[in-house]
Amino acid sequence: MAKAVLGIDLGGSRIKAALVTPGKEVLGTASEQTPAAEGPSAVMDAMDRCARRLVKESGLTMDAIEAAGIGAPGPMNWQTGIVYSPPNLKGWKDVPLGAGIAERLKVPCFVDNDANAACYGEFWLGAGRGSSNLCLLTLGTGIGGGMVIEGELVRGPDGTAGEVGHMKVARGGRLCGCGARGCLEAYASAPATVRTAVEALEKGGESVLSKMCGGDREAITAEMIGTAAREGDPLALDVLGETGEWLGLGIASLVNLLNPEKVILAGGMAEAGDLLFETIRKSVLLNAFEVPAARAEIIPSALGPDSGAVGAAGCALLRLVR
Amino acid sequence: MAKAVLGIDLGGSRIKAALVTPGKEVLGTASEQTPAAEGPSAVMDAMDRCARRLVKESGLTMDAIEAAGIGAPGPMNWQTGIVYSPPNLKGWKDVPLGAGIAERLKVPCFVDNDANAACYGEFWLGAGRGSSNLCLLTLGTGIGGGMVIEGELVRGPDGTAGEVGHMKVARGGRLCGCGARGCLEAYASAPATVRTAVEALEKGGESVLSKMCGGDREAITAEMIGTAAREGDPLALDVLGETGEWLGLGIASLVNLLNPEKVILAGGMAEAGDLLFETIRKSVLLNAFEVPAARAEIIPSALGPDSGAVGAAGCALLRLVR
Repeated sequence: MAKAVLGIDLGGSRIKAALVTPGKEVLGTASEQTPAAEGPSAVMDAMDRCARRLVKESGLTMDAIEAAGIGAPGPMNWQTGIVYSPPNLKGWKDVPLGAGIAERLKVPCFVDNDANAACYGEFWLGAGRGSSNLCLLTLGTGIGGGMVIEGELVRGPDGTAGEVGHMKVARGGRLCGCGARGCLEAYASAPATVRTAVEALEKGGESVLSKMCGGDREAITAEMIGTAAREGDPLALDVLGETGEWLGLGIASLVNLLNPEKVILAGGMAEAGDLLFETIRKSVLLNAFEVPAARAEIIPSALGPDSGAVGAAGCALLRLVR
Repeated sequence: MAKAVLGIDLGGSRIKAALVTPGKEVLGTASEQTPAAEGPSAVMDAMDRCARRLVKESGLTMDAIEAAGIGAPGPMNWQTGIVYSPPNLKGWKDVPLGAGIAERLKVPCFVDNDANAACYGEFWLGAGRGSSNLCLLTLGTGIGGGMVIEGELVRGPDGTAGEVGHMKVARGGRLCGCGARGCLEAYASAPATVRTAVEALEKGGESVLSKMCGGDREAITAEMIGTAAREGDPLALDVLGETGEWLGLGIASLVNLLNPEKVILAGGMAEAGDLLFETIRKSVLLNAFEVPAARAEIIPSALGPDSGAVGAAGCALLRLVR
């Protein structure tokens, strides 16, 4: 058995790596900037460098590494390891990421969707540990996520499963980045929450947000809304409440569909903490069936920004032995 | 190995039975009325009678029967075989259905949720044969259904998974029978479709439906709407279109979440056929991601009213060997 497996999470702005043993011990993590402007080859070199640095810092040599798992942004093919044209990696087109990293690191390499890898990470070593059925929602610029059912990551025949942010919560509703209308992401992502705040201000609402953004509503961020809400600003509290209601609606659908033991919320928006979680929990109890609503714990991520790298390592370990 | 396994679907108005071999041959089916008014014991006697008649008609004796599977209405516990208090079986409270049938038939007996059993039936021997990932929606008085992922029925830790009719498609929308608002069932079940038609007539819409119902809008049925639509009645076509749009929205969520190979529509409403299916297919292509939308075939049930009984037999066969 391998001494350790590498997990590498490729984000648009940062590369994160984790070194994990088959015994579920995280030996260390490392991170560096993604040289996204320099193209795929430079990015793969940076991933290679980051991974090798982590192995060295952990007191191991590459001989001890059995495989590497990569969490990469979609659209991509998890079976061939080819990344098609991710919106946050400009200029990438059909890049053989799995083969490129395998060649550099000289170990078998397995690629998975980044959100699915993060979901598996929380299941394997994070907030989902000990449960067999869970959903992850990553609340950021978009809403990504994934699902584990009876201990298995749900990928679907094309590997596109897990798009929790693109459940429809309104017919003919807000236009989403995906091109459709009424997706959960269009109401409850960070930019959607900002939009809700801007709309409230445009309707004449008063808030410390006007001061915080220096009069420039375009400069309002989800973090500002979180800060204002924690300070007790009524408009910011209403805005977070709105986002929580929409999330509650989407999560109620997941709870009715899948009867998960845990629904884990990750990403920047989840840091709004109890203000958001309490609204979501109330909404789920109101909107989902009693038994699955009572079952589903709605909790924050335990691995935070490392869930993708840790999960990619976990997925690789599993794919190695299958 | 058993010569055959019985499947019994317990409905509020009819009991259906199917006899299936482990080699996937359906030896026969039988059906009789559910004596619902006479209480649980009489209903179990009728199930026993129906099953034994089917075995006899198929030229077998009970010695050849290894097990029985039951599809029963929820809420219920699939592991203990206890049925709690199904809305369409008045007076039932915590009935040990599994034990009651096992005692009568003298074979091991396994109980599953009726909609989940129907889903498994379509997967095992119906329209889903040959695929590993599918969703079933039964369009009737309510919208039930289920999901098979990687060849496994999704039950969830409490056995409540698969409530496709209670995905939320509107915030603060129509009140649903489940007590929540905005469920798919509240927009696209048979009674919901009737409600859409009645609302259109109340707004002054003209339709042959006014004549078909003899001036009594309360008498309008989903079948009437289907008939009027097939005759080209514009209002009825609009109403079916509305139902199709809502179903398309819900199915787009399933397609984005689960990447199913097939989405199977069963139940009375599905008999509206192409008029409904074409609207749904268009809506899914518009609302879901391209790759999973292209993958998901949206097709009618192959087993029709027998899917529950056949699926209950399939579930029993699997549970017998696990």
